[in-house]
Amino acid sequence: MTTLPQLGASLRNRRVLITQSADFMGPALCAAFQSHGAAVIADADELLDPKRPEKLVNDAGQVDVLIANLACLAPSTPAEKVDDTEWDDVFARLVLPLPRLCRAVLPQMLARKSGKIIVMGSASALRGMKRASTYSAARGAQLAYVRALGVEVAPHNVQVNAIAQNFVDNATYFPPQVQALEKFQQRLAAEVPVQRLGTPEEDAMLALFLACDEVRFMVGQSIPFAGGWVT
Amino acid sequence: MTTLPQLGASLRNRRVLITQSADFMGPALCAAFQSHGAAVIADADELLDPKRPEKLVNDAGQVDVLIANLACLAPSTPAEKVDDTEWDDVFARLVLPLPRLCRAVLPQMLARKSGKIIVMGSASALRGMKRASTYSAARGAQLAYVRALGVEVAPHNVQVNAIAQNFVDNATYFPPQVQALEKFQQRLAAEVPVQRLGTPEEDAMLALFLACDEVRFMVGQSIPFAGGWVT
Amino acid sequence: MTTLPQLGASLRNRRVLITQSADFMGPALCAAFQSHGAAVIADADELLDPKRPEKLVNDAGQVDVLIANLACLAPSTPAEKVDDTEWDDVFARLVLPLPRLCRAVLPQMLARKSGKIIVMGSASALRGMKRASTYSAARGAQLAYVRALGVEVAPHNVQVNAIAQNFVDNATYFPPQVQALEKFQQRLAAEVPVQRLGTPEEDAMLALFLACDEVRFMVGQSIPFAGGWVT
Amino acid sequence: MTTLPQLGASLRNRRVLITQSADFMGPALCAAFQSHGAAVIADADELLDPKRPEKLVNDAGQVDVLIANLACLAPSTPAEKVDDTEWDDVFARLVLPLPRLCRAVLPQMLARKSGKIIVMGSASALRGMKRASTYSAARGAQLAYVRALGVEVAPHNVQVNAIAQNFVDNATYFPPQVQALEKFQQRLAAEVPVQRLGTPEEDAMLALFLACDEVRFMVGQSIPFAGGWVT
Repeated sequence: MTTLPQLGASLRNRRVLITQSADFMGPALCAAFQSHGAAVIADADELLDPKRPEKLVNDAGQVDVLIANLACLAPSTPAEKVDDTEWDDVFARLVLPLPRLCRAVLPQMLARKSGKIIVMGSASALRGMKRASTYSAARGAQLAYVRALGVEVAPHNVQVNAIAQNFVDNATYFPPQVQALEKFQQRLAAEVPVQRLGTPEEDAMLALFLACDEVRFMVGQSIPFAGGWVT
Repeated sequence: MTTLPQLGASLRNRRVLITQSADFMGPALCAAFQSHGAAVIADADELLDPKRPEKLVNDAGQVDVLIANLACLAPSTPAEKVDDTEWDDVFARLVLPLPRLCRAVLPQMLARKSGKIIVMGSASALRGMKRASTYSAARGAQLAYVRALGVEVAPHNVQVNAIAQNFVDNATYFPPQVQALEKFQQRLAAEVPVQRLGTPEEDAMLALFLACDEVRFMVGQSIPFAGGWVT
Repeated sequence: MTTLPQLGASLRNRRVLITQSADFMGPALCAAFQSHGAAVIADADELLDPKRPEKLVNDAGQVDVLIANLACLAPSTPAEKVDDTEWDDVFARLVLPLPRLCRAVLPQMLARKSGKIIVMGSASALRGMKRASTYSAARGAQLAYVRALGVEVAPHNVQVNAIAQNFVDNATYFPPQVQALEKFQQRLAAEVPVQRLGTPEEDAMLALFLACDEVRFMVGQSIPFAGGWVT
Repeated sequence: MTTLPQLGASLRNRRVLITQSADFMGPALCAAFQSHGAAVIADADELLDPKRPEKLVNDAGQVDVLIANLACLAPSTPAEKVDDTEWDDVFARLVLPLPRLCRAVLPQMLARKSGKIIVMGSASALRGMKRASTYSAARGAQLAYVRALGVEVAPHNVQVNAIAQNFVDNATYFPPQVQALEKFQQRLAAEVPVQRLGTPEEDAMLALFLACDEVRFMVGQSIPFAGGWVT
């Protein structure tokens, strides 16, 4: 009988670059990958400087797994009042760093014929929400980018996927003061079948799964991770 | 017996603003709306100037229907070679004008509690294609924007939807020299169940349907229109 | 200048077979197609008898458009209490007549290289709802059938599509006593962005659109028609 | 520093019931769960007898994870030639056992407020294929059932999800003689971005992920697992 690999065992010693490591899912991702033996390269900066992604990747050396963990506060402006400043700011944080990171890391992955890119995205791109047009558009750009890139680099054994999450506990989008609101708890009960926030550890486990070499057959996917808020 | 309205009859005398009217689906849209009695305000400019959309809407006066027909050539750059110039250029043409047009036209629509916005989008945001990461991302931003905006303004009787098309005959994306290629014809036969390009008239008919007041119950949708290339 | 066709003009004198014509969307469909000049063949029977669909089609003669309007009450049984009787009954009404109708009508459509099949389906197959597992499964079978059949017969100029509706006013699913419930009105306000039920006339207009020969490029689609309940 | 759980560690000693264990993904599933320390209860029978699912569950005792691995050969009949026998046979094998299994196992899962149900489904329900209408419809019923059931039992800490796979190596659907066909290899190269069949081990890893207690926030999902054939 052949001994099957343990799920996630391949992550040991894998070099995993995690961006904006203090924000959004960054802390949980760092902990989860480290606890699975990966060599985590955590970078806490926002990637606003156009040259920063390339430098980050170059400084990191070999990157087996890139986790594009990009986040900024989601404006709640009614669409008719969204101005260029808001739009440009959100896209500068959520969208522009993504192709820059990918073009920096892809050459080494394509050369090695091995690599994983995981985008920590949002289910707000999959289900409409009020007063979230700017943010949703930016998150939609991410998911469509993943879809196209995933298909493009799949023949080279590089897998690109996204997590389309919502209602996962994290300090960037669901700080304690938001969670404390009765209105928020009511919304959770009414809209999220699981009836609770996902834990950051659960979310990081999905990222681990997408990052591990035991599975290299999923590409271009956006996996909804939102407690049943989208099905 | 009540006499039912004829589908599309409500378009008579409706004021329909069509952008980039000489490109992409512009010519077919203008012809179709005119032939249904609408008052078409066609603007042939590209909307690169940030202030142009607002001026365009202001000059148009009442706009019952906005058709955001935005187009630019789709680069075919491998993702690792996409530079900021390509990305910024495509987003400047396909994405940035959209929130500018909407914020310009929404106040009058919300005030009248009536209006239609239709985005001529792309199925490339729904199904991954190689060497199309920039373009797909921009088209994905459009569709996610429509999803959010559609839900937001729905209670005010404004309907926002998109057509997610591909393989529709138009001079911008499928010029004669492309259609003449044997390789293109083979791709059409292999990938598009309908086994032909859609005609611009067929596409314009879907826009007419989404624009007409006989139906005000669809919001936030991206209707695939690609001969079965996406189902 | 070429004169463009009017949307829906092609429906004049088209022979349209509408099943279960007294239920669900039947009455609205009959009225809408008749008001557009179609020759409506309305059949009010439930199609439980396995031989009834074939006889119905044979009796109808030429069928240019088949509207598979199949409906039955949706049970609200918790999944652990659903028995075979419920399951079989729902599938006998919603699912089994569909392939029987299609295999009866397809030979003439394929021979003429022209035809339209429209399934009046449900968005419950696209978004999970509690205590609706039997019904959702049956509606899901319909939509997946449409997807496959749509692709299969597309090269023969037969277009098969579905309307995936919810929250459209009809006596089968939203009888007056349901609409009168405060709880129902609250649900409508909370879950349906359009904040009202769709009218049967609006729904029938979408069927008209899918049935008309002005557009023959959409195949295998399930168009959500639910006031933004699904995007 | 808290020690995080290892992905999949929770599977140790979990009682996992796997149906049709000699077919489709059965062998790979049994091996994968066993290698992760689960107590696998494998049943090789087809579940055609209506009372068999209940007996199977009762005999199994505590079932922490139910893997509904249902399979039968996919007919390739043109839709106009599909008869009731084909339809009934495919639904008897793929569809009917599913609600029977679930209603048998749900009471104990709901009572314990803990449980996982995973349906080994098909991406053929998500993307249309020719000459596959019966099979696609049956697989579509499965996915829509999962969507509804997943939402229904989510508040009770039972997670129901499906794998919507295609092009995964298994003896039921891709026997050696099929894989040996040049036409098949060409189709794989043309349609599947990953350019190969997925291995059964990769597929089983996704099932492990969905089965493990480290993540209990995904419900009602159908995860495409098809090498990029669907995105």
